[in-house]
Amino acid sequence: LGLGLGLAAALALAAWRRQRRPVREVLFFPSRPSCTEAVLVEAAAEPGAAARPCPCPLPQGDCPLSRLLRRLLSARRSLEICLFAFSCPQLSRAVQLLHRRGVCVRIVTDAQYMGIRGSQIGLLRHAGIQVRHDQEDGYMHHKFAIVDRRMLITGSLNWTTQAIQNNRENVLVMEDAEYVKLFLDEFERIWEEYNPISYKFF
Amino acid sequence: LGLGLGLAAALALAAWRRQRRPVREVLFFPSRPSCTEAVLVEAAAEPGAAARPCPCPLPQGDCPLSRLLRRLLSARRSLEICLFAFSCPQLSRAVQLLHRRGVCVRIVTDAQYMGIRGSQIGLLRHAGIQVRHDQEDGYMHHKFAIVDRRMLITGSLNWTTQAIQNNRENVLVMEDAEYVKLFLDEFERIWEEYNPISYKFF
Repeated sequence: LGLGLGLAAALALAAWRRQRRPVREVLFFPSRPSCTEAVLVEAAAEPGAAARPCPCPLPQGDCPLSRLLRRLLSARRSLEICLFAFSCPQLSRAVQLLHRRGVCVRIVTDAQYMGIRGSQIGLLRHAGIQVRHDQEDGYMHHKFAIVDRRMLITGSLNWTTQAIQNNRENVLVMEDAEYVKLFLDEFERIWEEYNPISYKFF
Repeated sequence: LGLGLGLAAALALAAWRRQRRPVREVLFFPSRPSCTEAVLVEAAAEPGAAARPCPCPLPQGDCPLSRLLRRLLSARRSLEICLFAFSCPQLSRAVQLLHRRGVCVRIVTDAQYMGIRGSQIGLLRHAGIQVRHDQEDGYMHHKFAIVDRRMLITGSLNWTTQAIQNNRENVLVMEDAEYVKLFLDEFERIWEEYNPISYKFF
């Protein structure tokens, strides 16, 4: 009986997933300075655990950054990240949280920008996350992520606090198999090309 | 009879437009150095005029840049451009050609970057195209264009030869009414906010 119920629940979930409208949204930045502590604590907490309110004075609630965080934190199996610059501490915490939760995280980034002040790349590597970078003159200028091989997140936004709070930026979020496949193929091409086995040390 | 035939043709065209699969593609860069002269000459030429082959030694044929040029050159009525940096001469020629053809071109750009070496913004203004820019500390970092209020072109690519030839970049091209509307609304918001009437001269 238990097995039957489990199967029924799985089928119902699969049917719901098929019927539910695919995510299609655009996040426009700048995002006013906001406290995203609740989003991160909620994602890290045991189910049912009560979150303590954050004592910081920043406004809480929905904003483009909190929406981006929630989209990323929905990952259950895999997260590919292909980013020119990554220095936003909140987004870095989200990625580390996913890694600890067992999500397979892979990051591709730009060699010239991974060492900038505040870059999170070192911390992410230290946390055990796989990172690969280019060895080219040109920039690895992509700014996209793929959640569970299902959702594409892409746009003009580098994951830096400067860009999030001050720049005009856009981020498309789409559950769209066709676009996901094209970007995933691009990620795998770059991932293989930036294999450390091929690095040249002059 | 002529009127009837014209009406029939218009209806057939409308039906064809409805049935034809909407454009959905991604252009990945870098694009190898290529001669795009044929694309530009073809677009500028009188119908039926034979194009002389370009004497330059660069390879011709399809490449991400030529595809981007063709998408832009398909504009018949309007072109909104919202770009952080614009210095690519070929893309600038395409935009000027559209302006001469009577397409309503409007450009929004970043104040700090519109004066960089090779920037096309001055030339485009000189050609009579409307350009507006920010007066903010943050960057106007968008990189999108909208063709005939029908096709969205957006991604990580600034329209510079450096980025086109050397960087890893992506450009999504989509005929998608929902996304077009969101980006068009963003363009109109910025266009109004950057109205020269509101510029402050310190």
